Amino acid sequence: MQAKAVVLLSGGLDSATVLAMARAQGFACYALSLDYGQRHATELMAARRVAAALGVVEHKIIALDLTQIGGSALTDPSIAVPETPSAGIPVTYVPARNTVFLSLALGWAEVLGAQDIFIGVNAVDYSGYPDCRPEYIAAFERLANLATRAGVEGTPFRIDAPLIDMSKAEIIQAGVRLGVDYALTLSCYAADSDGRACGRCDSCRLRAAGFAQAGVADPTRYVAD
Amino acid sequence: MQAKAVVLLSGGLDSATVLAMARAQGFACYALSLDYGQRHATELMAARRVAAALGVVEHKIIALDLTQIGGSALTDPSIAVPETPSAGIPVTYVPARNTVFLSLALGWAEVLGAQDIFIGVNAVDYSGYPDCRPEYIAAFERLANLATRAGVEGTPFRIDAPLIDMSKAEIIQAGVRLGVDYALTLSCYAADSDGRACGRCDSCRLRAAGFAQAGVADPTRYVAD
Repeated sequence: MQAKAVVLLSGGLDSATVLAMARAQGFACYALSLDYGQRHATELMAARRVAAALGVVEHKIIALDLTQIGGSALTDPSIAVPETPSAGIPVTYVPARNTVFLSLALGWAEVLGAQDIFIGVNAVDYSGYPDCRPEYIAAFERLANLATRAGVEGTPFRIDAPLIDMSKAEIIQAGVRLGVDYALTLSCYAADSDGRACGRCDSCRLRAAGFAQAGVADPTRYVAD
Repeated sequence: MQAKAVVLLSGGLDSATVLAMARAQGFACYALSLDYGQRHATELMAARRVAAALGVVEHKIIALDLTQIGGSALTDPSIAVPETPSAGIPVTYVPARNTVFLSLALGWAEVLGAQDIFIGVNAVDYSGYPDCRPEYIAAFERLANLATRAGVEGTPFRIDAPLIDMSKAEIIQAGVRLGVDYALTLSCYAADSDGRACGRCDSCRLRAAGFAQAGVADPTRYVAD
């Protein structure tokens, strides 16, 4: 039987690449997206497009209202999305987001009998987010194997973070080789309701620079276009 | 300033006791309940009563539809709630539930500036649940301090599980000393819509035996009454 994997899919460039990588490794992929009240809700439309294009077995979108917790420019409308890089951990950091997302992926993986969970965290371009570091991923994997029936009974989970040491340009080049259509993805923190990117937020800047460095034409639709 | 704590509050006997303990230790308590599609939704009404009776600063109820993930008698209507104890991990185990709950508590704690998170897990009566063991709690605490801005910047989180080594009778005796009114709480996995307990599920049996062993009159309202 084909091994199953749960893949966290945001609709952005990174997670689309991870999904393509998981598929290329031969996994039957189950995509999980969270509708967490993110400012960029058009991201979920992008996640649907990417999941369909890359042929997942199932795509689940779970609602979880993180705006009740707030504390981030992405989940609290009173905090502005910055247009210039900040020192330290940026205000777009969502408290405990990756821990919440990985926990839900873990629950689903256990029900499915999947041993692999893929997440598109990256420690190079987003070094300001504490929950994107290799030591964090290793600690979650350890936790997962203490937390679950499957871990205790001897089928350990792996948390796969294949992008963790890659630059944005390397990620784009890898995705292009795997046939990812980045026009389907959306990375902007402040996209308009048509899914057009602002071109000015941190995430847009990193993405545009990545395409330029990769020598790949940027397929992003910008508001100014 | 009074130190803040986030307390996971289910509406059951254990978490009500934990909330009373956190208050007795002098914390300003922020109660967090999850509306996760649990079969025993009357549990949330119990959580509201307990939070009000014990004077929390704020009580947040976050909706998260774990029925989409299923895999447990508590979240999948097609799996029956057992009336006799089972060997190994019981079917009432909800995959990754405590990891999901602690993650959300961690996010809120970070936003509040709280360093303490209280959870009513217990390794004695519920030894079948992997995410109720001391080594699991220690692993989550370690993860929390790698996952967050607060942990990285030097105000570490503590995961407080004061019931972990206590018997049900000891928990009840401790709660009675702290003035907990257990008539407000609900432990049953299959309560009716009036919040009356079935008296037959694992959770009802453990609770009733606990009152008997503690020498405390059982204030539970049962369907058969």
